[in-house]
Amino acid sequence: MEKTKKIILPEKEIPEHWYNIQADMPNPTLPPLHPGTKQPIGPEALAPLFPMELIKQEVSQERWIEIPEEVREVYKMWRPSPLFRAKNLEKLLDTPAKIYYKYEGVSPAGSHKPNTAVAQAYYNKQEGTKKLTTETGAGQWGSALSFACNIFGIELEVYMVRVSFDQKPYRKSMMNTWGAKVFSSPTNLTESGKKVLSENPDSPGSLGIAISEAVERAASDGGTKYSLGSVLNHVLMHQTVIGQEAIKQMEMANDFPDIVIGCFGGGSNFGGIAFPFLGLNFREGKKVRCIAAEPSSCPKLTKGEFRYDFGDTVGLTPLIPMYTLGHTFVPAPIHAGGLRYHGAGAIVSQLLKDKLIEAQAFHQLECFDAGVKFARSEGIIPAPESNHAIACAVKEALIAKEEGKSKTILFNLSGHGYFDMSAYDAYFAGKLVEHHLTEEELHADLKKLDTPTIA
Amino acid sequence: MEKTKKIILPEKEIPEHWYNIQADMPNPTLPPLHPGTKQPIGPEALAPLFPMELIKQEVSQERWIEIPEEVREVYKMWRPSPLFRAKNLEKLLDTPAKIYYKYEGVSPAGSHKPNTAVAQAYYNKQEGTKKLTTETGAGQWGSALSFACNIFGIELEVYMVRVSFDQKPYRKSMMNTWGAKVFSSPTNLTESGKKVLSENPDSPGSLGIAISEAVERAASDGGTKYSLGSVLNHVLMHQTVIGQEAIKQMEMANDFPDIVIGCFGGGSNFGGIAFPFLGLNFREGKKVRCIAAEPSSCPKLTKGEFRYDFGDTVGLTPLIPMYTLGHTFVPAPIHAGGLRYHGAGAIVSQLLKDKLIEAQAFHQLECFDAGVKFARSEGIIPAPESNHAIACAVKEALIAKEEGKSKTILFNLSGHGYFDMSAYDAYFAGKLVEHHLTEEELHADLKKLDTPTIA
Repeated sequence: MEKTKKIILPEKEIPEHWYNIQADMPNPTLPPLHPGTKQPIGPEALAPLFPMELIKQEVSQERWIEIPEEVREVYKMWRPSPLFRAKNLEKLLDTPAKIYYKYEGVSPAGSHKPNTAVAQAYYNKQEGTKKLTTETGAGQWGSALSFACNIFGIELEVYMVRVSFDQKPYRKSMMNTWGAKVFSSPTNLTESGKKVLSENPDSPGSLGIAISEAVERAASDGGTKYSLGSVLNHVLMHQTVIGQEAIKQMEMANDFPDIVIGCFGGGSNFGGIAFPFLGLNFREGKKVRCIAAEPSSCPKLTKGEFRYDFGDTVGLTPLIPMYTLGHTFVPAPIHAGGLRYHGAGAIVSQLLKDKLIEAQAFHQLECFDAGVKFARSEGIIPAPESNHAIACAVKEALIAKEEGKSKTILFNLSGHGYFDMSAYDAYFAGKLVEHHLTEEELHADLKKLDTPTIA
Repeated sequence: MEKTKKIILPEKEIPEHWYNIQADMPNPTLPPLHPGTKQPIGPEALAPLFPMELIKQEVSQERWIEIPEEVREVYKMWRPSPLFRAKNLEKLLDTPAKIYYKYEGVSPAGSHKPNTAVAQAYYNKQEGTKKLTTETGAGQWGSALSFACNIFGIELEVYMVRVSFDQKPYRKSMMNTWGAKVFSSPTNLTESGKKVLSENPDSPGSLGIAISEAVERAASDGGTKYSLGSVLNHVLMHQTVIGQEAIKQMEMANDFPDIVIGCFGGGSNFGGIAFPFLGLNFREGKKVRCIAAEPSSCPKLTKGEFRYDFGDTVGLTPLIPMYTLGHTFVPAPIHAGGLRYHGAGAIVSQLLKDKLIEAQAFHQLECFDAGVKFARSEGIIPAPESNHAIACAVKEALIAKEEGKSKTILFNLSGHGYFDMSAYDAYFAGKLVEHHLTEEELHADLKKLDTPTIA
């Protein structure tokens, strides 16, 4: 009986640099624009919200950026993360494809998010930040930043999307355990929150709204800065430790992926696993297909428009060149709260525009079906977000079976689902609903946009 | 900034044998007695409930018992488990003591329990068992056996102690995800459950009651066998992979423990970490102090009596020589559900009687206080059961500080607390109560016993 294989990298193989894909992209990203003047802005415009080192990283064109020793020391608590050959899942699917997954759920917060949370907390500490604000969807990011702020002794305020706050109360308990304050967003604490509530007192919230609140709070207080868990270039870059380790682990397995898959919210988990492989495509002529798996109920990559849009709902952030559904789009309250975001980061958007990556959308039910198959064969209960990557891997493995081809598929299992069991309960009870967006719903918020288009 | 260090053993170092401490004990355990005749019974009496291989292991005097390759293959999904030097906790306590912990929460079910669950499911499968029954307290054991039975294709019925069933609904969801049926015990499905409910319809349940139910179900059906998550000799033996790995990891750290600590319910987690070290005491003259940390509300080791008693509440099991509070003792509904058991396994009881191990009792509040200190310094949120081991380690580290001595302390972090966040919520809200047993409460069930005493 041959079982699932775990491929472990020695601790000294934790990457010493983050990989900055901006150095290798055929077409650079377009510059962000000032939200008022709509003219290109320089990095200095971000100074009220972020420490200088992160702003430098945001616009850097250096290929490799050194990871500070203090950050690597914290990484050692759970990195290198394991990579598994999913033999049991392969057998269940009766596929000739070889399926591998990188497992980021081994971190203390249970997802890939601490990879950037620790770095961001570190640079903020270095530059004297006393307090951070942030948003969180499913709670993975809020937990990760709570963990990181606790390590470096920084206060933290978390604005948690209401639907997740209600669905997942224990994520809040986790953040509290690490000393953070957590609010159900929209709140009455900010002008942004009040505005949303005045229009819809029952708003389920969204990542866009929560970002508005967290940004507003940080901007209105000198000692406070803001931290974002996805979308921005430096955030995606911090996650490239995942793909770098995976490249070494695939070597240890004497294999190399034809397809690399990540679920997609703002891009950090996808970028983390895919960018180092794309780097090999760009520099060494490899031909890895990188697929972003997004929810059908929030299909910015497969159905959105590539144009300038705000990162938040209210319109406080710079305008970013992104695939977007419109910054006022409020996705249905699906259980994969971490993927309920209207737009994609600038780098990922440019790569998709240039057809250097692919995107596929998956319905909630097929994702949970794949997740349960995975739990029963591989033994790990995945986060609902991660189920999108699994659904995509299952689909590609079944295509390989149809074609009678042996392909090698690698996906990132971004986190465990131990805080998402109510979603599994709903799935088993047949209570999970599909959210089928009409064409009208899909375009309503895009039509409202008066932000600059991109030719 | 020197952080917590992780010590990783290569996969090939997963032990190839379980360590059977019966080969090395100065005094052997007394034989179990027939529940009716009260005469010593042979291994064949256990045949209706257990597969032959496990019965052989139960009474074996061989020092090393080979781990089947199929079991080691499954172990590879998460073993070897990491060992950490808790530098951050040491710093927080400002102690000269060095604190290490072995972390078993990396298993799919989140605790040490799969170490024996996988072995038991394997042997049952080998001998043709179609279905297993079991009990579970906090749900750690039920989850572990669900995981294992799913792997080997065996049906499973779990009797879950009512107070935990209500406190921890998501453990049930986890078991369901792996395909098990879960009942809130006491149930109306068994004569044992009906008897308890007739006496107290509001019974919070106990491990002893749930065992009665699971044993009764298995005994009344030919194709069904029963599986126990602690107490029995073979169960404790399967856990010795923990201590064996820890010995190698302490070598890698160029250190050796003066003190080894495990929390104590029935003995499997304590035995798992301590027995291999006790083996070194017996065979090589080492002098490791092994301490079992139990809850003050269920203090069988520190306040119980060493005599024959039943393993279950109703009195269906053989009589076992154990430290007990009386098999009808129903502990207060503390959050460490896995430690709510009236008795200790025969081996551990004999070792305590012979003063070869120590025992200490801890109150619920001091355990959560230690657990939160640990979460904030080491980043892992512990299971409430594990908090007892942490409380003991903290106590010993502070004694070392008072004495100005550098001691090396190792404890087993038996599992994570991701399914126990409601307990942490209650702790933070000041709603956790202490359960102070009166002398009368403590002795009430012991006084009722008419089982054989031991001179």
